[in-house]
This record gives sequence, structure tokens and C-alpha cells, in this order.
Amino acid sequence: MKIKYKLKHIDHNARYGTIETNYGTFETPMFMPVGTLANVKTLTPEELKATNSAIILSNTYHLWLRPGEGVIDKAGGLHKFMNYDGPILTDSGGFQVFSLAEKKNITEEGVTFKSHIDGSKLFLTPEISIKVQNKLDSDIAMSFDECPPYPVSREYMEKSVDRTLRWAKRGKDVHNNPKQSLFGIVQGGEFEDLRKKSALETIKLDFDGYAIGGTSVGEDKPTMYKMIDDAIGYLPEDKPRYLMGVGDPVDIIEGVIRGVDMFDCVLPTRLARHGNAFTKYGKINLKNLKFKEDFTQVDECDCYTCKKYTKAYLRHLITCNETLGGRLLSIHNIRFLIRLTEELREAIKENRLLEYREEFLNNYTKNES
Amino acid sequence: MKIKYKLKHIDHNARYGTIETNYGTFETPMFMPVGTLANVKTLTPEELKATNSAIILSNTYHLWLRPGEGVIDKAGGLHKFMNYDGPILTDSGGFQVFSLAEKKNITEEGVTFKSHIDGSKLFLTPEISIKVQNKLDSDIAMSFDECPPYPVSREYMEKSVDRTLRWAKRGKDVHNNPKQSLFGIVQGGEFEDLRKKSALETIKLDFDGYAIGGTSVGEDKPTMYKMIDDAIGYLPEDKPRYLMGVGDPVDIIEGVIRGVDMFDCVLPTRLARHGNAFTKYGKINLKNLKFKEDFTQVDECDCYTCKKYTKAYLRHLITCNETLGGRLLSIHNIRFLIRLTEELREAIKENRLLEYREEFLNNYTKNES
Repeated sequence: MKIKYKLKHIDHNARYGTIETNYGTFETPMFMPVGTLANVKTLTPEELKATNSAIILSNTYHLWLRPGEGVIDKAGGLHKFMNYDGPILTDSGGFQVFSLAEKKNITEEGVTFKSHIDGSKLFLTPEISIKVQNKLDSDIAMSFDECPPYPVSREYMEKSVDRTLRWAKRGKDVHNNPKQSLFGIVQGGEFEDLRKKSALETIKLDFDGYAIGGTSVGEDKPTMYKMIDDAIGYLPEDKPRYLMGVGDPVDIIEGVIRGVDMFDCVLPTRLARHGNAFTKYGKINLKNLKFKEDFTQVDECDCYTCKKYTKAYLRHLITCNETLGGRLLSIHNIRFLIRLTEELREAIKENRLLEYREEFLNNYTKNES
Repeated sequence: MKIKYKLKHIDHNARYGTIETNYGTFETPMFMPVGTLANVKTLTPEELKATNSAIILSNTYHLWLRPGEGVIDKAGGLHKFMNYDGPILTDSGGFQVFSLAEKKNITEEGVTFKSHIDGSKLFLTPEISIKVQNKLDSDIAMSFDECPPYPVSREYMEKSVDRTLRWAKRGKDVHNNPKQSLFGIVQGGEFEDLRKKSALETIKLDFDGYAIGGTSVGEDKPTMYKMIDDAIGYLPEDKPRYLMGVGDPVDIIEGVIRGVDMFDCVLPTRLARHGNAFTKYGKINLKNLKFKEDFTQVDECDCYTCKKYTKAYLRHLITCNETLGGRLLSIHNIRFLIRLTEELREAIKENRLLEYREEFLNNYTKNES
């Protein structure tokens, strides 16, 4: 079956809801950890579940190249391949073409670019992206879009928005997996009228959910929040809304207040591998000498890492490049964002979201650099 | 308290026994995974326990440099620092001085050498090694010895054996941790009479257990087995015997048959990080193309990895340099060696060790390169 979204409560523009999938029902707002290459780096599915993470994102572009969608199809789909029995969303590859590919050439038909692995020439189209995602058998597939950098000219963005709309239609036309939902993506950069047009034309295609794309591509925070504001009002109430590539705690809160239901980002795992941890009082870097003999836990937190290990031990592992350090901090950072969404959901249900934001920010900006 | 060894059954020269420690009792023969920097690379203590691993080894030299024994002492000892509540054996640093150090200069007083991290000048003596180990508060400390390469002249080895005996005495004299046992190390290379002398003089110092050192330093397998034979007959029956640095399955079996009780090696975790797995039918390398669409488990095995993941998935992780791959194979490879010791203990108890060896080797040499 396709996913089923239920809107259950609204506080300001923030929404508390549930999404039913073939692999269980989860509550929204929800943060999705990123499992680029069919694993959330260093972690097992059991560890993800222990953080109360309910849905992960995996990357079509990466899986298309390695191991190839054919291998995953033969394994029985991505869930079986990686032994993960929760819902999975796959992106379309559009963002990776933007961020990883060299010498790309965008035409009406699709994008020609060089592989980030071996430099070989690749050609990705809306049809290929959707067909690959059909084979991966994720629960939610994403439309193939162009994700322009920031800033680009209005003239370029106008053409890009129109092309992304045509690509969305082409992808939808070939989508052929009755168990898989398909989301459209609103683009338009920082141009209010283009966001409006992109939103209105995308919803005409009647997707199972809608993403706001083209954020986290170099713009400042007020611009990012305006991009959300310019699009979200046009999206239907009865479908989930997903803000792509956003994982900073403050941005998650600002997104939720504006009506976003889903988020994803590599931030918690990437920060972890570099020795950084989210805490109630802002980010800290465990490499800092002041933690050398700090035998307290990283944060006021209920995760495995905080229950079992001290800052001094994590600092030791991180400074010695022992990968267990990044693994333990990944668990903590993911739990931090999942717990944030848990608290946001409670605040929405109790109509005290703005108070929650104020309290969170008062604490979080204390150490934040 | 010091450890208590109980010899419970003998088959040929192989011994089934138990060792009681402050952190629980374990059966021997036993293989010890190596946790160089206060962690068995990529793994948590819970994962080690799930493999039925009962005691780990950690490295004095590495912990002396990072984070320093003072930090670990302040944490309450190595067990608390790394949150591991099973027994720990620490080596003395002698082997790392042999294998890692540049430009070493050995004198009667100790060894001057360059740090493998930053090239700084270091000086390690029997007294420093033992005092560091006292602070680490491991359950079993090892004497500081010289581990000469293979081959060296008889003349050199004669002097080295005598010096190692004097170092053993000096270390024992300063050892000052009533909860910690101390093992002596028999050296002597491939020289039968020097092994005999080293063994007889070392046991005069009355240690809590005895190691056979100076193996796995470049000699061939028959020579290694002869080194064991030349020493082990002189060691007391009522103390545990530990063959240092040995982790190849065949060598473990040959060691057990000769009367060895304990083994350690980085082999299972190092092989795993390079994509290799022990199997009943010999080692396999998961990078091999033939596993690309092999959706069977790595081995006939009861470990987490074999219960949950396929060769195709592990191959994908390994070829993409995803550290989860090495982590999952580490779990399997450690479980493989631990299960080997479980089977060896059963075979000893049932007086069928030679039959077990024949059966194991018949299978294991099928794929072994």
C-alpha cells in the first residue's frame, strides 16, 4: 500500500501527525538519519531503533553506482539487502548530481556527469531515477529534480523550475511500484513567485507527499526560512511535507513551526565522525583538551553512549582515530535529534510549541559557537 | 585477589581448566581479542560478550602514550575507563618496542626509542612498564621483556635471555597491586637450551602465570611449534600458560595440543578490516567478485553477523569502505576463534582432541590459500 498521513493536531502552523507505511506507523514531525550506502554509517538497524529512529533515508545515486539496483532487487529490495525492517525513503539522485558530480551538463532529457568514484560518464534521467527507486523498493521515492546552487539568476531559476516540473511528470508517468509512494519536490530558490508556481504546479500532479528542495545549498538561515514560508502555504494539509537536507536542531524547530513534518541530514553522523556532539547547551567538540579528564557523560541524555561512556573516554577514542568513537557519538547525535522531535511532538500536542522553542534556544545557544 | 587457575582435565598435553578473576571466571583454552587503545576496534563490550569472549588484552605501550596511565587511573582503572567489566590482560610494551619503535637502543637499564606517533624520544624500563600496568589496574600484567626478531645469533639471544630475566626480577620487585596478577615471559628464540634456561630461571621468580614469547616474529610454523615444545614442559602444571601473539586457527589448535591455555592476536579484527572472514572451509575475502550476488551467510555460524547479513551486503560495505563492514566481520571473526576454543574445550573433556584437529583441518584447508 501507499503511505497514509493523518493530521492529528495543529499548534500555530506546526503539525502533529502519523504516517502509516508497509513497515509500521511513525509519528511526525520526524527526523530521518541518512544511510547513504545502505547503512547509516557505522551503525546497525538495532542501534537505530534503540534511538527511537523510525525511518531512514538512503541515496539512489550511490546505490545505483554501488552495488547497483540489480543486486538490491535480487536481494529482495533494500530492506532485505540491509536487514532493516523499518520504512525507508530514497532520494532521487538530484541532490548528489548537484553536490558530487563533476562537469555536469543539464539538458531537457536529463543530466550527463562524471562519476565521483571513477570519473566514468553517467547519464541520469527522471525515468532512470524512478525506475531505480522502484527496484530499490523503498517506501517513499522522490521525484528527480534539478537542485540549483544559491544564488542563481531569476532567469535560470525560472527555466529550472519549469524543467523540474516536466521531469516530475515524466517520473510520475513511469513510476510503477504499487507499494511505493512518490513525493514531488518544490523548487524555486529564494524567488517567492517561483516557489508559489512550483508548489501549485507540483500539487496538480497529485503526489503522495511534498518536499521543499533547494535549501541548505549555501543560503543564509533567514533565506532558508523564507523559502519554507514561500512554499508551504500552498501544500495540501492532508499530505506530509518534507524539508530536504536539514538537520541543524534550530532549523528543525523553525521548520516544524512552519508546518514541516519530515527532515533528513547527514549532520548528526558527520559531526560525530569529526568528534562533535550535540548537547542541551550547544555543540561541543570532544577533541577539546578540557575533556581529557572529564569523567561525566556527554549530555543529559538517555542514549546508550551517555549511559555507558564518559567524555574522557570518547575524547580518547576520537583523538586516537578509533572508529568506535564516531560510532558512539553517532548514536548520541541521532538520539539527540530524535529526542528533539519527540519533544516537539509533545509541545505541539500541548499547544506550547513557542514556549518550547524559547526554552530550547535559551539553553542551546549557551555553548554554541 | 590474584587469579586462581584450576586444571580440570588433560587430553594428550592439552589442558581444560578455569581461571578465576576479580571480574568473573572463564574457561581455558581461551582466545583473547586485542583492545589496543582501550577498545577492541569498532566493537562495544556488549558485542564482545555476545561472542562469548571472556577476557581481552590491552596494550600498555599505547595506553601509556594515549591517554596516559594517569587519566586511566583517575577514571578508576581501565575497566571503568572503557566500561568493560570482564577480565583484562595488559601486555608490557616489550612487543610494541620491538615492532613499532624506530631507532631503539637497548641497554641494561631499559629501551630508548622514538614514539610511533610523533617521533618523540621515549624511555621504557621494567619498572615503568610495571608501574604503568599497576595504574591501569588490569587483572593480569606482563613482565617487560626483550622480544628479539627472528633470526638472531645465538650469542645475541643468550645475552637477551639473561637481560630479560634480570628485567623480570626488577619488574616483579616493584609490582605493587594486590588485585593484579603478574606473568613471566619465556624467551630464547629457536634455541632449545636457551628456552629451557629461560623457562627454568623464570619460574624460579614464581609468577602467577607464564607466557611463551618471541613467537610470531618471522619464524616458520614448525619453528614456532618447536619453540612451544622447547619451553612448555618446564612450566608448572598449576599455573596458566599463554602463547603471545598467536591467533591463526591452526596455530591455536597446535598450541592447545601442546598445553597452551591462553592466546591473543589482532588477526581476527585486522583481517576483518581488510574484508577477510574465517569460515569452516578456510579464509575468504569478501571483496571477491563472486560474492556480489551471494545472498547466503558468511559461515555456518551463530554470530550476530551471520544471523543477520549476507555475503553480498558485507561485500558491498567492504568495497565501499563503510566501516560497518569491518565491524560486522570483526564480530564474526572473533566469534569464530571463540567458538574454536569452545569446541577445543569440549574435545579435551571428551578425550577426542586429535580427532577434532583432523576434522577441523580437513575442512579448513579446503579454501585456505
